Amino acid sequence: MNEEAVSEEPVLVERDGRVATITMNRPERRNALSLEHMHRLTAAFEEVGASDATGVILAGNGPVFSAGHDFADVAEADLDGARELLRTCVHLVETIQSVPQVVVARVHGLATAAGCQLVADCDLAVAGNNAGFAAPGGKGGWFCHTPMVAISRCIGRKRALQMALTGDTIDAPTATEWGLVNMAVPDADLDEMSHDLLERATRGAPRSTALGKQALYAQFDRPERDAYTYAVEVMAASSQTPEAREGIAAFLEKRSPQWPR
Amino acid sequence: MNEEAVSEEPVLVERDGRVATITMNRPERRNALSLEHMHRLTAAFEEVGASDATGVILAGNGPVFSAGHDFADVAEADLDGARELLRTCVHLVETIQSVPQVVVARVHGLATAAGCQLVADCDLAVAGNNAGFAAPGGKGGWFCHTPMVAISRCIGRKRALQMALTGDTIDAPTATEWGLVNMAVPDADLDEMSHDLLERATRGAPRSTALGKQALYAQFDRPERDAYTYAVEVMAASSQTPEAREGIAAFLEKRSPQWPR
Amino acid sequence: MNEEAVSEEPVLVERDGRVATITMNRPERRNALSLEHMHRLTAAFEEVGASDATGVILAGNGPVFSAGHDFADVAEADLDGARELLRTCVHLVETIQSVPQVVVARVHGLATAAGCQLVADCDLAVAGNNAGFAAPGGKGGWFCHTPMVAISRCIGRKRALQMALTGDTIDAPTATEWGLVNMAVPDADLDEMSHDLLERATRGAPRSTALGKQALYAQFDRPERDAYTYAVEVMAASSQTPEAREGIAAFLEKRSPQWPR
Repeated sequence: MNEEAVSEEPVLVERDGRVATITMNRPERRNALSLEHMHRLTAAFEEVGASDATGVILAGNGPVFSAGHDFADVAEADLDGARELLRTCVHLVETIQSVPQVVVARVHGLATAAGCQLVADCDLAVAGNNAGFAAPGGKGGWFCHTPMVAISRCIGRKRALQMALTGDTIDAPTATEWGLVNMAVPDADLDEMSHDLLERATRGAPRSTALGKQALYAQFDRPERDAYTYAVEVMAASSQTPEAREGIAAFLEKRSPQWPR
Repeated sequence: MNEEAVSEEPVLVERDGRVATITMNRPERRNALSLEHMHRLTAAFEEVGASDATGVILAGNGPVFSAGHDFADVAEADLDGARELLRTCVHLVETIQSVPQVVVARVHGLATAAGCQLVADCDLAVAGNNAGFAAPGGKGGWFCHTPMVAISRCIGRKRALQMALTGDTIDAPTATEWGLVNMAVPDADLDEMSHDLLERATRGAPRSTALGKQALYAQFDRPERDAYTYAVEVMAASSQTPEAREGIAAFLEKRSPQWPR
Repeated sequence: MNEEAVSEEPVLVERDGRVATITMNRPERRNALSLEHMHRLTAAFEEVGASDATGVILAGNGPVFSAGHDFADVAEADLDGARELLRTCVHLVETIQSVPQVVVARVHGLATAAGCQLVADCDLAVAGNNAGFAAPGGKGGWFCHTPMVAISRCIGRKRALQMALTGDTIDAPTATEWGLVNMAVPDADLDEMSHDLLERATRGAPRSTALGKQALYAQFDRPERDAYTYAVEVMAASSQTPEAREGIAAFLEKRSPQWPR
């Protein structure tokens, strides 16, 4: 986001009110996801996850959001090394989906391969109009198997096959139309619109929102009947929480709710 | 649909030819889904389901289609009470999906929370251009867990997270683009277009259409190979029905089919 | 595609460089999928599948792409006969999805019922702007159960119900918007654009692309966590292939890769 960033820390964690920003700060490596970088990102999400922040912006410094795995690492990896890289990447996205905060990817420039996987596995995503998205392994020799797990769950089958097989970059309006990101905005408005979406996504009671996020991921891939069986129990139990009681009381009394901290 | 409705029955069931209309008639409660109201709606669908109607329009009188669960009920519900409310709601939507008739939601005004779940779980939906759709629990204290089961199965993952977390209302053209409803039409044409879609969806032989509807829900959430194994058997068996024989004969003889009653 | 085709072979297999074209050549039967025709198509895909071709165009001669099952066959089929027809059709689409080549459907005119299923189960699809798509069993007496397995996995639930129940034909731009095909192009450009998409989808190392295609179908319908467990192993193992080593080396050395044959 800012090429003049002075810090040399590869992952920056900032806090403004109840919003944390985690910034990938390896502009010279196009925020490539080296093993160490993924461990740092995961640690950053765990740190923020344990805090009282309610939302997280995931951003990248430099020319692109993230170029994916670091091929310098991969070139030297044997089978165990490759598996460790990929498992660490899956652990990163599972951490993003399991923290209680809402996570918005703020995407500028390019998000390719595992970088595009990050976008697909964040809860929400806002893209600058000039951003691009690709799974380029398909036009190379190492297919983007794990990135496509996340990407295909957002954009549907024919489009997933197209992105995976061609490796072509799709633009931000197309990514919006296909459901890979929530919106494409002028690049100059990217910060403002990412924060605006995060603000709207965190108006609820934090514990209710955190439970809601978990329950969504738990039910997405289940058959509808199974999902209902699960969701009924979660929703019934959560009706007895202080947050639900306050929300319902505030609604009936036509006043603003005061969430318990 | 008609604020001057004189009946005080909370659920109206009307019949015109082979089309039944089930109308939620609690305008003063914004067609909130109280426990009793859901029981009445389920009974109405069971009644129509056992009749020789071939299609159903689900509509609402008053300013909105449905505002979801009745918070007056919820405010007093303990865990068992909340579970009963939610199970009854799931039973309602499962009844809608299991009746042999095609069910079209005719949506005006707002469809929120469980009201939006109703729309998502009807077979088809037509919205007035001024209609809105929301899962507002996300900005409150009681997350819309069960409504999101239905909504997320229509609109995909990123959009489901956006609706669920922000609680924001989406408009009818957006709902159409996202696949939550089949079309958005001028409000003045809502009745006509709902009936037109239902007419087109019920041209087939009633028993064939009824079986087709059931089989779609049975296969939607299965892996493709499993779904094929199932669909082959259903389609092979149904090839021997009088309806299939008549449909095929009529096609080959270039005449209109006469469906057995 | 070419009504003056002189060959009387019902299925034509041509080869141009590394691209094979399989053409349904029963224009007088609107490329109806008789039992024999499906066996011939399957054999053609198996033949091409065992060759060193990297991509396949599936096309149809005559006025339409394919009208689906041959009702002359179906009219005489008993239960076992109907099952054999449907199983053979599923075996055809599973063969299309299991060959190592990328398969692009080149769709002109109409693709109806099992013809539309073919389009939905090919890896990619390009449609002429005047092409139409339908599952017309819904307005007849024999519901399109098996075609809807493929179609519903491309277009989502509400649109699947609409196509299946109404039997109405959707046009190519709508099919594109819904994700049933990858693009709609002027009819005059259909050949060129189909080959262009196939060329872009086969730039990668053939063995990598073939593995990628298989892995996509293997993970599409799994819960995300299961899909990741599987994809990590496939991607880790494939990192050690000559194709991956060459692709990564070429990237790091800023040169074009030379794929092993």
